[in-house]
Amino acid sequence: MPLSQEATSDVPTLPGTHSGIPTFLLEKARKAKEGVFDTRTKPTKERQRLPVVPLGIERDEFMKALKELGEQLGEEHVEINDKPLVDGWYMEHPNTHDMMTILDEEELVASAVVYPSSTEEVQAIVLWANKYRVPIFPISMGRNLGYGGAAPRVRGSVTIDLGRRMSAILDINPEDYTCLLEPGVSFYALYEALQARGYSHMWIDTPDLGGGSVVGNTVDRGVGYTPYGDHWAAHSGLEVVLPTGEVIRTGMGALPGNNTWQTFPYGFGPYSDGIFSQSNFGIVTKMGMTLMPNPGGYESFMYTFPHEADLAPLIDIIRPLRIGNILENVAQLRHVTQAIAALGQPRSDFFPGGDDDGGALSDDVVHAAATKHLAVGDHTWAYYGMSYGPDHIRKHKLALVDAEFRKIPGAKKVDPATLPADDYYFARDRIAAGIPDIHELRWVNWTPNGAHVAFSPVSPIRGTDATALFKLGKDTHDKYGIDFFPAFCVGLREMHLIVEIVFDRADPERRKAAMDCLREMVDKAARLGYGEYRTHLVLMDQVAGTYSWGGGAIMKFNERIKDALDPNGILAPGRCGIWPERYRGRGWEMGSGEDGGGVRGGGWWGG
Amino acid sequence: MPLSQEATSDVPTLPGTHSGIPTFLLEKARKAKEGVFDTRTKPTKERQRLPVVPLGIERDEFMKALKELGEQLGEEHVEINDKPLVDGWYMEHPNTHDMMTILDEEELVASAVVYPSSTEEVQAIVLWANKYRVPIFPISMGRNLGYGGAAPRVRGSVTIDLGRRMSAILDINPEDYTCLLEPGVSFYALYEALQARGYSHMWIDTPDLGGGSVVGNTVDRGVGYTPYGDHWAAHSGLEVVLPTGEVIRTGMGALPGNNTWQTFPYGFGPYSDGIFSQSNFGIVTKMGMTLMPNPGGYESFMYTFPHEADLAPLIDIIRPLRIGNILENVAQLRHVTQAIAALGQPRSDFFPGGDDDGGALSDDVVHAAATKHLAVGDHTWAYYGMSYGPDHIRKHKLALVDAEFRKIPGAKKVDPATLPADDYYFARDRIAAGIPDIHELRWVNWTPNGAHVAFSPVSPIRGTDATALFKLGKDTHDKYGIDFFPAFCVGLREMHLIVEIVFDRADPERRKAAMDCLREMVDKAARLGYGEYRTHLVLMDQVAGTYSWGGGAIMKFNERIKDALDPNGILAPGRCGIWPERYRGRGWEMGSGEDGGGVRGGGWWGG
Repeated sequence: MPLSQEATSDVPTLPGTHSGIPTFLLEKARKAKEGVFDTRTKPTKERQRLPVVPLGIERDEFMKALKELGEQLGEEHVEINDKPLVDGWYMEHPNTHDMMTILDEEELVASAVVYPSSTEEVQAIVLWANKYRVPIFPISMGRNLGYGGAAPRVRGSVTIDLGRRMSAILDINPEDYTCLLEPGVSFYALYEALQARGYSHMWIDTPDLGGGSVVGNTVDRGVGYTPYGDHWAAHSGLEVVLPTGEVIRTGMGALPGNNTWQTFPYGFGPYSDGIFSQSNFGIVTKMGMTLMPNPGGYESFMYTFPHEADLAPLIDIIRPLRIGNILENVAQLRHVTQAIAALGQPRSDFFPGGDDDGGALSDDVVHAAATKHLAVGDHTWAYYGMSYGPDHIRKHKLALVDAEFRKIPGAKKVDPATLPADDYYFARDRIAAGIPDIHELRWVNWTPNGAHVAFSPVSPIRGTDATALFKLGKDTHDKYGIDFFPAFCVGLREMHLIVEIVFDRADPERRKAAMDCLREMVDKAARLGYGEYRTHLVLMDQVAGTYSWGGGAIMKFNERIKDALDPNGILAPGRCGIWPERYRGRGWEMGSGEDGGGVRGGGWWGG
Repeated sequence: MPLSQEATSDVPTLPGTHSGIPTFLLEKARKAKEGVFDTRTKPTKERQRLPVVPLGIERDEFMKALKELGEQLGEEHVEINDKPLVDGWYMEHPNTHDMMTILDEEELVASAVVYPSSTEEVQAIVLWANKYRVPIFPISMGRNLGYGGAAPRVRGSVTIDLGRRMSAILDINPEDYTCLLEPGVSFYALYEALQARGYSHMWIDTPDLGGGSVVGNTVDRGVGYTPYGDHWAAHSGLEVVLPTGEVIRTGMGALPGNNTWQTFPYGFGPYSDGIFSQSNFGIVTKMGMTLMPNPGGYESFMYTFPHEADLAPLIDIIRPLRIGNILENVAQLRHVTQAIAALGQPRSDFFPGGDDDGGALSDDVVHAAATKHLAVGDHTWAYYGMSYGPDHIRKHKLALVDAEFRKIPGAKKVDPATLPADDYYFARDRIAAGIPDIHELRWVNWTPNGAHVAFSPVSPIRGTDATALFKLGKDTHDKYGIDFFPAFCVGLREMHLIVEIVFDRADPERRKAAMDCLREMVDKAARLGYGEYRTHLVLMDQVAGTYSWGGGAIMKFNERIKDALDPNGILAPGRCGIWPERYRGRGWEMGSGEDGGGVRGGGWWGG
């Protein structure tokens, strides 16, 4: 039984947000609606001809099929996607788009959205999709920002918006430190529910932005910043609707009457959960999650380092500290450009004389801006960390960190008392304490109509690798005239370079530059042996293509599983580069290089 | 390139062992060979007619097929299994049996053994098996003691003994704290290799017995006793030969030229590793493993508690300490009968007057034996733990533990200085410090021809569950007149009750009693909602059958994957209860209840 539907609803009480969306973005959307600063390229007439209908089915038959589905789910829960967009944001529009679109914003778009209220209704939708061979694309809350948002991979798919009506916290167990969630539970909602029940002995882990779905983030193998940051490793138990309509429960969930579904992830026999992460093999309708015990104290710390060349020795210092768990959460080394962008001001503010040549920021401009605008002063790298536990335990660890970090000449420990209350430091502090936040999104103000898309290659934690990836990113950004916002995030034994490209999504040229830059970085990185851990919808084919060992053995294996589980190829075709049999070799892929910018194949516009 | 073949060879230098096998067992085997105490039931004439030939192939064709395989691998690497057993031990016999057999020891037996030297040769064997439809059963080192040893599930299968010639440590990375292993690397060999290279900054994790394969144990989701005890969670990257002969590398291994295969487990797209654990979907030929950083100090501790009824409150005390990582390794609460059995003396020693009625030990006998023979004195429960880190950090944690444990009246902290050097305490101490050991096997001396088989249900960490499982186990053991050796092992959020039944494998009646007791416990536990995390070959169908939620949905799902990956059904049919299509519904399963004791179907004896 759900503990409380209320506990999982929106959280308007949190300052500066509504429904987990920052108010400044809501304001922006409102103004866009009023035409105050709607600078989007106007859609062509052709692009306005919504709704789009899935390939391979006639418009009339599709409408009839939707009507049939409406009879099962209630017609108010089946919605044709024929309303105009409001600046790409979804406030008054169903969850059908990538609000950070890197293509034309109606390029990857759903034909309709359906809102199931139960696992049984998800099964009914899947059976319906098999009957009509309609591609369906499940989303939890559609806030997969930087990786495709709510958009489906195949144009004209029917979006299954799980989050709207399946948003219950089904269980919170204060003895086991676990919970059981439906896809619509956001990090904010889970956090609020724990607070409301007075469960201060349990923490959640949150990613940079707290407005998204816990299930969605975890299934996409997203990460957070407490010691429970590897969300996939922290989950326990799934309920999954298979593409042919059956339901399975994994791990101990397969044992009737068990009381261990959320406490022991493995069960007996093959441990299947992994193949439902970053895939299109099933629809996760329930997920168990473990909660972190309150560590009995915590303390953020921040160091700055003056020079770009400090990167390599710093990373080599971080490696043993992180593996040895002296650095207890994701170790983050952020470039000063990120701190400048996180001020939330437009780039033009940093060219007071109006002398912006439009190219990537020069070092001179960056350091002048840092000196003038950042409370911590000028620097090149900033380390954001947190130490957990009682005071004397923290002292021990912080002393070890301090001795090591000060081996870098010019290293400075920042005194938080010197920082203003809205400094980025405090956003990092909240997140590392498991308190959801959305400060990070401020940097979409960097450009008009700001959107972002991520490049996130994985490497060992080594100075040489950090230097190679930094150079690759910087050179490619410079080539395309794009400002470079790198951050190195050390998981445990591996490091992700996370680069968010912020672009004006209303400017086709800047969109193309961002896309070309991304595609070039992915290919260059792969040639050096670095692969993405996650990527945007439109890059999935390219990234999957870089995992080509043994003549593409892993993709052939994935395709074999896909065809066995989804013989009609209806579930999220193309997600993570996996195409079912009836799509393969028919030009659906978006590869790298010159063909890479657009969609081949895809749906057609309805009349 | 392998670092060194030598580093992975046997380790005769370790005191008390040869090839990782305790010398007392070798001695026993030698005596058995000489007929000194070979008390086995004599095999019937029929049972002597080795070799057994797989079902569905004529003897002559099978011999021809083996010859063909010998031409590919070298004839010395293809061995017909036609030699008599030596008391069931494998010293002078190929790895074809369960040396702890619970059935007649030639019941589950291989027709032949092959010894590949490379992944390519494993592929060749798989293609050969598909050609002749011969069931193959891969083992790493075959030391899956208590769960089936080296025996195949289907009589007459061809064993692929990976360990004999694929035993290289392919890499040890002292910066990343990782290694890459072939299936023949034992915990002893890996430990020795680290010592030989002076890598004292890295620890391994070892299960109770160190003579087995790291790969084999991990793929069966075995556990150890350091903070890296969840071996499956600690692995990173697999190379797998699929049942149709293709090879995949999982995670970052799928990216050519990567340097992150052992540092980041997930890669991009579906995370496939899990379906190769406890399954028959592929043959793992390489596995990456992470190594634990030396914690900078460690200290074992042991408490005893006087009463059986202390169990429930103790478990409730342990739960938050374990989840909060104050108890940092698997929390073990062992019943005093285990300590008595671990003395390595036969049961008859505890009936000096010869007044043994053959039934389960009474409490009086147990406590009299404890008082007389145990250095720690009489008690009912003993907690074995270890604290890690520098002195002042350990003090903090140990003080918390002490305050909590002393809430149980009569709790005593044991002073190790009062214990003899060969006390069980020191074996636990070594294992919790990642030093392989085999002391645990001493309790097979409990009966003549001692063997053991495990019952291992999972529950939450709760006093009520501990009490229910204890009662279930005790009552059922009493019913069958079997001595009860329970230990509660707390992983993190879950608890495994591990009960090892020690039986005389030469006595068909005691074997049957052990098996009946096991089957009854499995069924009773399932009715209460408890499931096994792992089981013996002959119980796999029954245990898999308890995971029956949704009309057996998880098994139907596993079968769908099995049929897609192994269309000819050649790889380890029946392992973990998963039968390929051509075996299903043909009486191969060994169910619970009255039919449970024997093999239905199975191979026939060759002429």
